[in-house]
Amino acid sequence: MKTGVAYYPEHWDEWRWETDLQLMSKAGIGLVRLAEFAWSKLEPEEGRFEFEWLDRILALSHRFGIDVLLGTPTATPPAWLHAKHPDLYTVDEWGHTLGFGTRFQRCLNHPVMREHSRRITEAMARHFAGNPAVIGWQTDNEFTQNTCYCDGCAKAFQEWLKRKFGSLDALNSRWGTAFWSQTYTAWHQIPLPKQAKCGNAHNPSLLLEFRRFQSQATVEFQREQVRILRKHCPNNFITHNFMGLHNSMDYYDLAEDLDFVSWDNYPITQWDQDTSKASLAHDVMRGIKGRNFWVMEEQCGHGGWTVVGPRPKPGQVRAWAWQAVASGANTIVFFRWRSCLHGTEQFWHGVVGHDGIPRRRYREVAQFAGELAAMAEKLDESVVRNEVAILDDYEQHYAFQIQPQAEGLGVWEQVRRFHVSLRAMGVGVDVVPLDINLDRYRVVILPGWPIMTEEAAIRLRAYVANGGTLIVNPRTGLKNADNVCHEDVLPVFLGELLGVSVDDYDALADSCVPVISQNGEVFNASVWTDALLVDGAEILARYQDRCFSGEPAVTKNRHGRGVAYYFGTCGETPFYKSFLTEILAEAKVPMKQDLPEGVGMYWREGKNQRFLFLINEQSAPVDVPIDAGMTPLFGEVDGKTATLPAHGVALLAENG
Amino acid sequence: MKTGVAYYPEHWDEWRWETDLQLMSKAGIGLVRLAEFAWSKLEPEEGRFEFEWLDRILALSHRFGIDVLLGTPTATPPAWLHAKHPDLYTVDEWGHTLGFGTRFQRCLNHPVMREHSRRITEAMARHFAGNPAVIGWQTDNEFTQNTCYCDGCAKAFQEWLKRKFGSLDALNSRWGTAFWSQTYTAWHQIPLPKQAKCGNAHNPSLLLEFRRFQSQATVEFQREQVRILRKHCPNNFITHNFMGLHNSMDYYDLAEDLDFVSWDNYPITQWDQDTSKASLAHDVMRGIKGRNFWVMEEQCGHGGWTVVGPRPKPGQVRAWAWQAVASGANTIVFFRWRSCLHGTEQFWHGVVGHDGIPRRRYREVAQFAGELAAMAEKLDESVVRNEVAILDDYEQHYAFQIQPQAEGLGVWEQVRRFHVSLRAMGVGVDVVPLDINLDRYRVVILPGWPIMTEEAAIRLRAYVANGGTLIVNPRTGLKNADNVCHEDVLPVFLGELLGVSVDDYDALADSCVPVISQNGEVFNASVWTDALLVDGAEILARYQDRCFSGEPAVTKNRHGRGVAYYFGTCGETPFYKSFLTEILAEAKVPMKQDLPEGVGMYWREGKNQRFLFLINEQSAPVDVPIDAGMTPLFGEVDGKTATLPAHGVALLAENG
Amino acid sequence: MKTGVAYYPEHWDEWRWETDLQLMSKAGIGLVRLAEFAWSKLEPEEGRFEFEWLDRILALSHRFGIDVLLGTPTATPPAWLHAKHPDLYTVDEWGHTLGFGTRFQRCLNHPVMREHSRRITEAMARHFAGNPAVIGWQTDNEFTQNTCYCDGCAKAFQEWLKRKFGSLDALNSRWGTAFWSQTYTAWHQIPLPKQAKCGNAHNPSLLLEFRRFQSQATVEFQREQVRILRKHCPNNFITHNFMGLHNSMDYYDLAEDLDFVSWDNYPITQWDQDTSKASLAHDVMRGIKGRNFWVMEEQCGHGGWTVVGPRPKPGQVRAWAWQAVASGANTIVFFRWRSCLHGTEQFWHGVVGHDGIPRRRYREVAQFAGELAAMAEKLDESVVRNEVAILDDYEQHYAFQIQPQAEGLGVWEQVRRFHVSLRAMGVGVDVVPLDINLDRYRVVILPGWPIMTEEAAIRLRAYVANGGTLIVNPRTGLKNADNVCHEDVLPVFLGELLGVSVDDYDALADSCVPVISQNGEVFNASVWTDALLVDGAEILARYQDRCFSGEPAVTKNRHGRGVAYYFGTCGETPFYKSFLTEILAEAKVPMKQDLPEGVGMYWREGKNQRFLFLINEQSAPVDVPIDAGMTPLFGEVDGKTATLPAHGVALLAENG
Repeated sequence: MKTGVAYYPEHWDEWRWETDLQLMSKAGIGLVRLAEFAWSKLEPEEGRFEFEWLDRILALSHRFGIDVLLGTPTATPPAWLHAKHPDLYTVDEWGHTLGFGTRFQRCLNHPVMREHSRRITEAMARHFAGNPAVIGWQTDNEFTQNTCYCDGCAKAFQEWLKRKFGSLDALNSRWGTAFWSQTYTAWHQIPLPKQAKCGNAHNPSLLLEFRRFQSQATVEFQREQVRILRKHCPNNFITHNFMGLHNSMDYYDLAEDLDFVSWDNYPITQWDQDTSKASLAHDVMRGIKGRNFWVMEEQCGHGGWTVVGPRPKPGQVRAWAWQAVASGANTIVFFRWRSCLHGTEQFWHGVVGHDGIPRRRYREVAQFAGELAAMAEKLDESVVRNEVAILDDYEQHYAFQIQPQAEGLGVWEQVRRFHVSLRAMGVGVDVVPLDINLDRYRVVILPGWPIMTEEAAIRLRAYVANGGTLIVNPRTGLKNADNVCHEDVLPVFLGELLGVSVDDYDALADSCVPVISQNGEVFNASVWTDALLVDGAEILARYQDRCFSGEPAVTKNRHGRGVAYYFGTCGETPFYKSFLTEILAEAKVPMKQDLPEGVGMYWREGKNQRFLFLINEQSAPVDVPIDAGMTPLFGEVDGKTATLPAHGVALLAENG
Repeated sequence: MKTGVAYYPEHWDEWRWETDLQLMSKAGIGLVRLAEFAWSKLEPEEGRFEFEWLDRILALSHRFGIDVLLGTPTATPPAWLHAKHPDLYTVDEWGHTLGFGTRFQRCLNHPVMREHSRRITEAMARHFAGNPAVIGWQTDNEFTQNTCYCDGCAKAFQEWLKRKFGSLDALNSRWGTAFWSQTYTAWHQIPLPKQAKCGNAHNPSLLLEFRRFQSQATVEFQREQVRILRKHCPNNFITHNFMGLHNSMDYYDLAEDLDFVSWDNYPITQWDQDTSKASLAHDVMRGIKGRNFWVMEEQCGHGGWTVVGPRPKPGQVRAWAWQAVASGANTIVFFRWRSCLHGTEQFWHGVVGHDGIPRRRYREVAQFAGELAAMAEKLDESVVRNEVAILDDYEQHYAFQIQPQAEGLGVWEQVRRFHVSLRAMGVGVDVVPLDINLDRYRVVILPGWPIMTEEAAIRLRAYVANGGTLIVNPRTGLKNADNVCHEDVLPVFLGELLGVSVDDYDALADSCVPVISQNGEVFNASVWTDALLVDGAEILARYQDRCFSGEPAVTKNRHGRGVAYYFGTCGETPFYKSFLTEILAEAKVPMKQDLPEGVGMYWREGKNQRFLFLINEQSAPVDVPIDAGMTPLFGEVDGKTATLPAHGVALLAENG
Repeated sequence: MKTGVAYYPEHWDEWRWETDLQLMSKAGIGLVRLAEFAWSKLEPEEGRFEFEWLDRILALSHRFGIDVLLGTPTATPPAWLHAKHPDLYTVDEWGHTLGFGTRFQRCLNHPVMREHSRRITEAMARHFAGNPAVIGWQTDNEFTQNTCYCDGCAKAFQEWLKRKFGSLDALNSRWGTAFWSQTYTAWHQIPLPKQAKCGNAHNPSLLLEFRRFQSQATVEFQREQVRILRKHCPNNFITHNFMGLHNSMDYYDLAEDLDFVSWDNYPITQWDQDTSKASLAHDVMRGIKGRNFWVMEEQCGHGGWTVVGPRPKPGQVRAWAWQAVASGANTIVFFRWRSCLHGTEQFWHGVVGHDGIPRRRYREVAQFAGELAAMAEKLDESVVRNEVAILDDYEQHYAFQIQPQAEGLGVWEQVRRFHVSLRAMGVGVDVVPLDINLDRYRVVILPGWPIMTEEAAIRLRAYVANGGTLIVNPRTGLKNADNVCHEDVLPVFLGELLGVSVDDYDALADSCVPVISQNGEVFNASVWTDALLVDGAEILARYQDRCFSGEPAVTKNRHGRGVAYYFGTCGETPFYKSFLTEILAEAKVPMKQDLPEGVGMYWREGKNQRFLFLINEQSAPVDVPIDAGMTPLFGEVDGKTATLPAHGVALLAENG
């Protein structure tokens, strides 16, 4: 477990390097990430590699006992490469070529791009193999799907379709191209979903396949680098810096070739100040490979490119870093060491500022690094284990991105309603894919899952039959894997399991509908309402208004040794807390009902001991009642109460 | 009079066809619209026509006694045609080619597109001529102006201008191209109004001519199809599905070649839930050819492409269908039979849903179909006759689209203020062009009519001189037919008729101005204020504030045997109701002052009898007082009161 | 001192010209601006010049005693020129060519455009040289920076960079292209800042240089015209119509080649109705060359292209014209004589309307012209002298446009906070560049000045050392002239002068922070907060909340014989009024504390006398207390009080 920073020696005069490393060392920094944007410095002209400067900084780091993570620099191909191959640039959906001057400007499907990616990766891997400072690699930077509409992508997409569908007849039939006369009689007729008349209302089947294709393009681009790195540097780990709740591509696929996931955590930026998302993002990132992870870029100050984002409040940076550790992060790499003097990111503030003088941010990072170092031995092998899981699948994200259906149905929006409620009840959550063994979870939540295959349904039915508790949400079972509507009654493949069918539905836009529970509690339902026909299920709540007054909204059905709930609508936290309290109690999942609002509670399990992290996510102090049998490791804990100052943290160990 | 549905047998396995027709038949459906998007199925490759599948569904329909309307499938040219001729695609005003994947992607001016349109139309017309199931044809689908900026359009536009203006000198002089040095010295210099510097601020004369040109392109495209259909299928009627208040092209021109107008009525969608527009749209559609019409697509459920639109409330679909009939529709074709499994319109919900099971929507449509069948004989030959007309002209729409002048001056916005007020007073309205015989109307309302020719003014003066009552609105008489400002005093050509001139004016943006009437009533005026100089007119109201305090706002002038009013500003419903009540009383137009709010009242006149439709447009029940001498045909009518439940309908006959 | 109008004889039949000039003459109009959009009329085809029509109107004007200002018509190149050279069109940042149909469609860097600009200018200059009607010239129209991204601009930009930086090594090093691997190895690789991935987040150094380059393109384009005009018409003055607060290019550079500045003043348009900006704009325009100026287009009615803008209230046009004179304008040219019948600007209303009949606007303009004529002899040689200056520099505008950092930090936003407060205190302000002699000012305000060079700092330090009072604002001293962050402690180069350093900072977005002054007054601070470390300065105010509670916000430091204030945050008018009252009192700048709100107070100094203008900027009447020793020249002044009606004006002379 280490504290690290992203460092760009290529931005600074070499005489400064030692000062920087000394300052890092003094702050307890034990790792630097280097080189992930340095292609033009590493290969100033085609085929001429200059690695000496990097050798020197590696040696220096090693001298200070600071480990190094190297990045492959392919997120920013150099100017000479683009000048030689102008068609490497990505093309947007209007047909505009997006040219030089920023980053990620390359089409990942382009064979020349692929070749140069392999070339620079191989050169670096060969050169740095065995360097004692280097412990691992980061591929590229913040991969997303290959968002490109160039002619090369069009051809590659047509090839992809040919391989997948075999014949045009199969494609036409599965996509239903009879609709609007889109029947293709040659592969080359199939377009990319570029701008067209009628807005951009392409066939949803084509849109879904395009998302898969471009996600896979990124995965394959990375795979080529991973193969080379594994070959030459078999003792180094390989990771990539993911982006939390970003959902443009399939992160499960991307992670498959990696040793572990790391990610870039910016709880407050100019665009978003909802710090509650970080906790979900940690759970998502941990769930990708089902194991501990790193934070590869942890916010240490204001973000900002053209605008200066909000400044984290005193203590907040430390609290976020501890929240990451509490959620399963093993190493925290702050971004970046020093605010850049040049270029687009001048206002993305570093641990030290433009003037290089250690000030408030440095002191806070150093405090965290010291605390982590003190706890590292204890926490090192500990992991996060939960009894509640929320299922996730990027195909469902794509489906809702292609057809949002109603504002608020997006996968993360659905997931967050449950996650926020569970966290407030002191219940830890894993976010995991469907194809793992679900039996280790007492409760599994399926957010609206439009693309439902028979195979997925079989897994869900088996889980419940085997004693599990499943919660199903609206719009589940709507489509097949081609993004085509099933011809059956909703929720397709799960009707018998749930004991209900959907007779009608309504998208609520901005309005709300009251729903009343069995025991007379009334909640606001929003976003969507399914009007249910019950076939064996027990009715837990009914609509009170709009079209569906009196009709069932929430149901419960016993199936095998388990139980399956159908939530026909979406609600607010009280709605979920009320139903979840009953459901979790029945499923014997422990809750902490006296957890004060705004306090995050996280557990890590070591071999012999469990660790409890209490993190005050607010700017006011708060007292948290502590259960018996806990020993404080740090933080102000007095008998049965932990007193957390604003953004304060306490760590306790369960008496073993 | 029939109830129909749009049906897409090409989307479904053939074994299902009979089930569908059986279900339709059971619901009282007597007509299907077929084939308007089926080009790729009808001509899978160039010159190879496959009509057998359509023959089979026609035979089957005939067996069930269901008539067929066929569409020419030119709204969705097949992929093979575009692959062969990539320049058929339309180009937007930035120069982007809008390619394959949706619909309407073809430039209607392109000679190759024209040729293929004639070819497929001729092949279908020849093949289906005399087929006993076929009763008529729909051209293409939802024509708009040809919104294309391709090089072919540029050349065609230049040719159009050459034919119209004869010489560049004439064009330069009439357009005033001396302004900003736009004098053209060769025809090829004249641009399409593509994106240019200064936003898109092209010469308004060029912009108006471009609108006419592209509107005419669509008219001519249709005309070629109509000629072919008339030749081969002389016993079939020909119509087209218009779009109500859509105003991108000249619907009078488009309708000229057709037997009657039909239109697509969607009162609530994700974009607009103002159901009060449907009533105006019916009046507009009836007025295009001055005769009864069809609804070719009547909403039967939620609309939606990527978003699911709001669900009509119980009873609303039936009420809308009856409102259509009450407004002069003779046949109601619901869209569509069944929700599509594939393609862009998966969420545009059909009479039955994806699962094909008759549910709520089916039952409501069947109820309407049964009621209509029961009334059909009585209503069949009845028509709508009104004593108040609002004039309409697409050139005025173009003028306000090109230069809105002030938010709220658009033609439909002006028309709606009068229409809503008149409907609330129980007064039926025709919306008609200026070149018909106006003498049949007691009151004629001229919305702001910027493009005023002497010929139009002569008609208006004659109407008033002959005893008519005319209401003129702001911005009338501003421009000549070249969209050039008249050099005379406003309202040009009508000053003497109205006894006023406009001394100054102000656009109000978001603010309001009080106006006070002769008898001391104060109203909010908005949108626009004309400060009038009175030359013979009586002053009915004056401004109380802003620049024009105390100056005349509304005037009345006797002219010949009639009277002409000038409304120098816009108001809200109380403003119009107050003045219209006096004006209509003086003009001896009957009103129904005790009509409850939210109830639509419509008359159809048969040969010997008049029929009164009462439609509750609200979700709360309402009692409507009934005049003596009315016999209920259906609905809850008790002596002098009709009791209408939420979205309820009553039909009464006047005792003959 | 004259009253003029913009006149477009080429838009009107020649028989009307005499009527127009007669009407002008009657209204006291003594000047017309002609020909600035008439290229196609002056040169109907390449090389064929037709100047006779202009000769005739010049002769006619001369006969009426009306002077003429001629414009070079290069803002609207004719259609034949673009048809011959399609690559003259500007290209936008997406790569779209913006074609014919509006104006300013030409790339000012294009050699062919340059050649034709010189050609038409030379032809006009030769022809009209010595014409007794012509007194001066206006270059082009409303120059902005050359907003073009064409290939020619790319090459020219690369050449510009080569000249400036000498070597790619220098450029790479100064721009820090190591960031994101942007190191250039050939000049042709350097892109224009076109659309690229990641929004448009180009290197801020490149962005700044591009702004300079395109600003200079415009300057050079004008310079070529100026040289020709000077050569042939040595007795004519040359000016250009600037655009007040417009800040896309360097107005100081543009003005260098001109005799005086003139500008286009539209206090209320459809986009902006904040009339308080006009006063600042006058001060800015006067400051460009530090001398009296003209208003070349003064609003006389509603503006509007597609929308009709708000109508000035009665009296407002006259009040604006007098405000211009009071602020240092010597001639007021109203735009335009008559509303255009044709073209884009049909609703940009003239002194007379479309109908050519003198109405309200004509009468108000005539009133002003008469008053000005009566006062002209007195005011003619008078100038504006103030004791407070605000510094301005277009490089700072560019810097904040490229990186706004926080909403509200833009130069004019910062300047307006001071300007509005000072105006409300009856204190006149000059807005001037840094490189003049500042010693004539008692107080100098430096708005946030991110790009700070050592040379600039030396001037500021010398000014204070010499006895001046300087106010410095946040974000000063952040960058060097390459838009690269300084490596030193903020405010770089000024820390010693101010006795403070910036320890940290926060951008406030929409929120506020209370600051409390020494004497306990509490103000709302917004936009930005600097947390200061004091090194010798006196603390005038501290933050009360957020991160920086208790830390210094406003400081004062004696330096040499002067004093330097640091405002670490932005406030509202009470904040500035409170601190400025103390600062100005100490600096012995006279204020008028009893000036009623909404009254503008302006001084002009003649050789022997000072003139006081009082202008009521509101729609309610107001009484203004007058100091002793003032003689009224016009306006209702009674002993010690001037009574100003709505938008009223009074002029007084100080007893000499």
